[in-house]
This record gives sequence, structure tokens and C-alpha cells, in this order.
Amino acid sequence: MVTINRVAAMGAAADGHRRDGRRIGFVPTMGYLHEGHLSLMKLARGRSDVLVVSVFVNPTQFGRGEDFASYPRDIERDTVMAAGALTDILFAPEADDMYPHGHSTWVEVGRIAELLEGKSRPGHFRGVATVVAKLFNIVKPHVAVFGQKDAQQAAVIRRMAADLNFGVEIVVAPTVREPDGLAMSSRNVYLSPAERVQAPALRRSLDAALRDIAAGERDCATIGRRMREIISREPSASIDYISLADADTLEELPTLARGSRALVSLAVRIGKTRLIDNDIVIVD
Amino acid sequence: MVTINRVAAMGAAADGHRRDGRRIGFVPTMGYLHEGHLSLMKLARGRSDVLVVSVFVNPTQFGRGEDFASYPRDIERDTVMAAGALTDILFAPEADDMYPHGHSTWVEVGRIAELLEGKSRPGHFRGVATVVAKLFNIVKPHVAVFGQKDAQQAAVIRRMAADLNFGVEIVVAPTVREPDGLAMSSRNVYLSPAERVQAPALRRSLDAALRDIAAGERDCATIGRRMREIISREPSASIDYISLADADTLEELPTLARGSRALVSLAVRIGKTRLIDNDIVIVD
Repeated sequence: MVTINRVAAMGAAADGHRRDGRRIGFVPTMGYLHEGHLSLMKLARGRSDVLVVSVFVNPTQFGRGEDFASYPRDIERDTVMAAGALTDILFAPEADDMYPHGHSTWVEVGRIAELLEGKSRPGHFRGVATVVAKLFNIVKPHVAVFGQKDAQQAAVIRRMAADLNFGVEIVVAPTVREPDGLAMSSRNVYLSPAERVQAPALRRSLDAALRDIAAGERDCATIGRRMREIISREPSASIDYISLADADTLEELPTLARGSRALVSLAVRIGKTRLIDNDIVIVD
Repeated sequence: MVTINRVAAMGAAADGHRRDGRRIGFVPTMGYLHEGHLSLMKLARGRSDVLVVSVFVNPTQFGRGEDFASYPRDIERDTVMAAGALTDILFAPEADDMYPHGHSTWVEVGRIAELLEGKSRPGHFRGVATVVAKLFNIVKPHVAVFGQKDAQQAAVIRRMAADLNFGVEIVVAPTVREPDGLAMSSRNVYLSPAERVQAPALRRSLDAALRDIAAGERDCATIGRRMREIISREPSASIDYISLADADTLEELPTLARGSRALVSLAVRIGKTRLIDNDIVIVD
């Protein structure tokens, strides 16, 4: 594995692999890698000749008052883990190389970027779409892999890749979880021991929703109420949103129609740590 | 020369040329080709192994009440002219292939897209930047050539290509003019004979500005006033804007500082036809 820090050098390396007819797989990350990232790399590795993993804590997708400064970073550990996952190129650029003085272009993905996380975190997906567009142009992947944990991010990237004709195959990989059901996330490191015990409530509330739907419940307000109750039992938990939405448009659903695909998702603060989780349900 | 109408087929052809190590040159146009376009093609031809010319009247860069429906089109004549300019691929996509149902992603270039033409034509450069981003991803050029007549468009594209790391060399070619100084434009066909006689006033007002600057005038209001007088003598002319701006930021200049680069530009309606022209002046 080689580590590349400069944007221009990464672009040149990607051009070389393209010219030699190699298929480039890409996993963009913000680093502080965990098993979830490794599963994305494994998937990308199996679909490409050259695996590129980027580590870049993208400042433009954090809002004011969010955790950009404190976001966990450990490039040495990331380097060992990426190499262990058979990465060929670790791309770890600097912010002032990615966003030089005068940068003023933004990619806006429209309605699906304004709901759910987009509503709670204004400007977040503008930052995500812009940095992924930049990374796609630098790394020139044939296939890029994203995690289902960030379901809306995956939908936004799919939309952007199609609308701007990137010609990149977007693969979404299942969420990897701790044994107690907590979705893997770099932000889990923020949780105190007392908070960590409460965090699996997100998964339990999703399980309750799945059970309700399997039992025939089709009213989204009823399903959401049960989810809310489960979260509310945790003393450090405060709900940002609980949502049952169309899995494609992300518009809220009043009821679950037969044959529909619903995204059941939630964002919850446990103490100061904001966690998200979701499932996609096909209603029969 | 081959004509390609489908986006997917153009993408595949570009991939093939890239894989074979050929340098792709690109001239995006809205068709109704004239000598100005031919000069861009000649420039691109000299810098590439494969020359792609696109003809697409992009609906998203026209505002309400603008001339999208009436914009002149003649794909047969364009085909003959492009072939004559040694084009390899004429790419003429359909609007519903470029913007399929559900398209919602836009490229916004910020401040420089909001001044001058951007102020007179809100949303214009959003449409331009978005379609050029799409075309760059489909055609995958190494070099793309734009005309200086659309000075602000060239600046917006340069900004976008740099900010989104397109890795496309942007070349701007000098404006080609009719013998009486009128800048070549597909829209010149709209002019009635009586209007056509008045249209060179744009060039004459630029010439007056150049003379004033050469004579030492540094006050932009004074220079603009002279330009305005020249246009106002034409009975069918109404001024949209006359501007002396920094050639990089496009911000209006009160005075011309030594060593500065100024964009002297104007937009004028002759009857119902909106014409633009400009010069870049280096102040000594």
C-alpha cells in the first residue's frame, strides 16, 4: 500500500491505472476506521483491481457547533487497518489542497438532501455531495462503496452520480453492528460507559418497528410512537427525529402501502453524541 | 465523423479513446454553428487526437421568457460544418436523455456566477455549470475550448473545473467577428436588416473604451458614460448593462489601477435580440 497526500499525485496515479485498463474501487471515509469500513473495503476489493481508500475529515459537511474539531482522528491506526484490508492506495489529502483559496463551487442535490438528516443538519449534504464529486474526479473510480448506516447519504450520492453522469457504480453495503446491535460508527468513541449501555436502544426501536410491521401494523404514527417510547426509557437519550419514509424519495409516509419500500430511520442524541440508524422494509 | 445521439454511447466511446491513450478535445456548443465555433474546433483539433463537438440547446440555462423555443437550430448544416472542421464525434443528445425524470442535482459556482450576465439572467450559470459538468463526465475531455465572447461563462467554467477537480484543461479562444466588428453569435440571425446595421455599436463602444484607457482615463464611470453614449445613438438599442470589472473576480471597479486586468463588457438589446461583447484590458 502507498499513501498519497497530494490531490495532483492521486489524480496522476488514477490516470495511470485507468490507462492500464485497471478497474478502480473506491471507499471514501472520514477515517477512524472500524469494522464497518473494513466491510466496505472488502466489498470494493472484490470488485476492482486497484482499491483506493480516502481518509479526509471533510470540513464542509459539518455545521457550526458540530463536532468537526473533535471528530476522532488516528491516521496511523487507519494506515495499518487499510493495509490489512488490502488497500492499494490510501489517499489522505489536506483540507487546503482539497479546498484551496477561492473555492466557491457547490453541488446541490435538491429535495432528498433537504429531508431527515438534511433538515437536522442544514448544508450537510451540500458538503457531502461536493466532496464526493471532487473525490470521484480525483480518484476516477469505476465502483464506489458506501454504508447503509448512512442511508440518506447513499441516496444523495446515487442521485448525484446519476444526475451528473459520473459513470461510477454505487454499491451500498449492509450496516455492521456491535454484538448488542449498536451500529458501528467512528462517533461511538464519544460515548461514556453509562451512555454506551443506552445506545443499543436505537437498534431495539428499529426491531420493534419491524415486529409491528410484520404483525400487520400499517399506520406510521403508531409505529413511530412505539419507537419513541423505547428511546424515551433511556435517561440520556433525546430524539432528533424518528421517520418512516419512502425509501426512494425520502418523503414521510402516513401509512405503509402494500409493495412499498420504506426507510425506517432515527437520529438520537445519547448525551452529547448524535447517533443514527435505519432499516429498509419491503411491505408485503 | 460519427454522430452519437445517446449519452451512454458517448460515454462508452470516450472510455474507449481514454483506454487507448488518445487525447480527447471537446467543444461544447448549442449548435447553429458559425465561424466562431469553427475557430474553437480548430484550436481543439490542434491539441487533441480525438475531437468531440457537442450540439445541445440546453434548456436549463434559459430563463422564463428567454428564447429557448426560438433558439435557431439546424443540425444538418451543423453536421456538415463540424465534419468540415475535422470533428471525429458529433454528440447531439436529446433533452430527456440529458435530464431524465427525477433529475435534481445542480452545480452552483457562487459569486462570479451572480454578477453581470448572472444578474440579468438568474439561474443561467447554474444551468451552464450543470450541463458542462455533465458533458465533462460523459465526454471525458483532456482539453475543452470556450469562446472569449462569453467571457463570464469561461470564468465560471474555469472556476468549476478547478473547484470540482475535473482535470480538464480549459482554453479560451479569441472572439471571431464580422468585418464590421459584430461578434459572431448564433443569435445574430434574429436581427432584422435595420437592426443588423446598428449591432456593431457594441464593438464601437468597446473601441471607445480602449481608446479612453489608452489615453490615460482611469475613472470607470467616465469610460462607461462614453460607451453608453455610443450605444444610445442607435434607435433600436437598449442597454442591459455596461461594466468595467476585475477580470478574475468580476467585481465592478471604480477606477483602473496600474497592473490590473479589467473586463470591459456590455449587454445590449437591439430590438428583441440580446447581444453581448467584451474585451480584457491590461492597465499599464
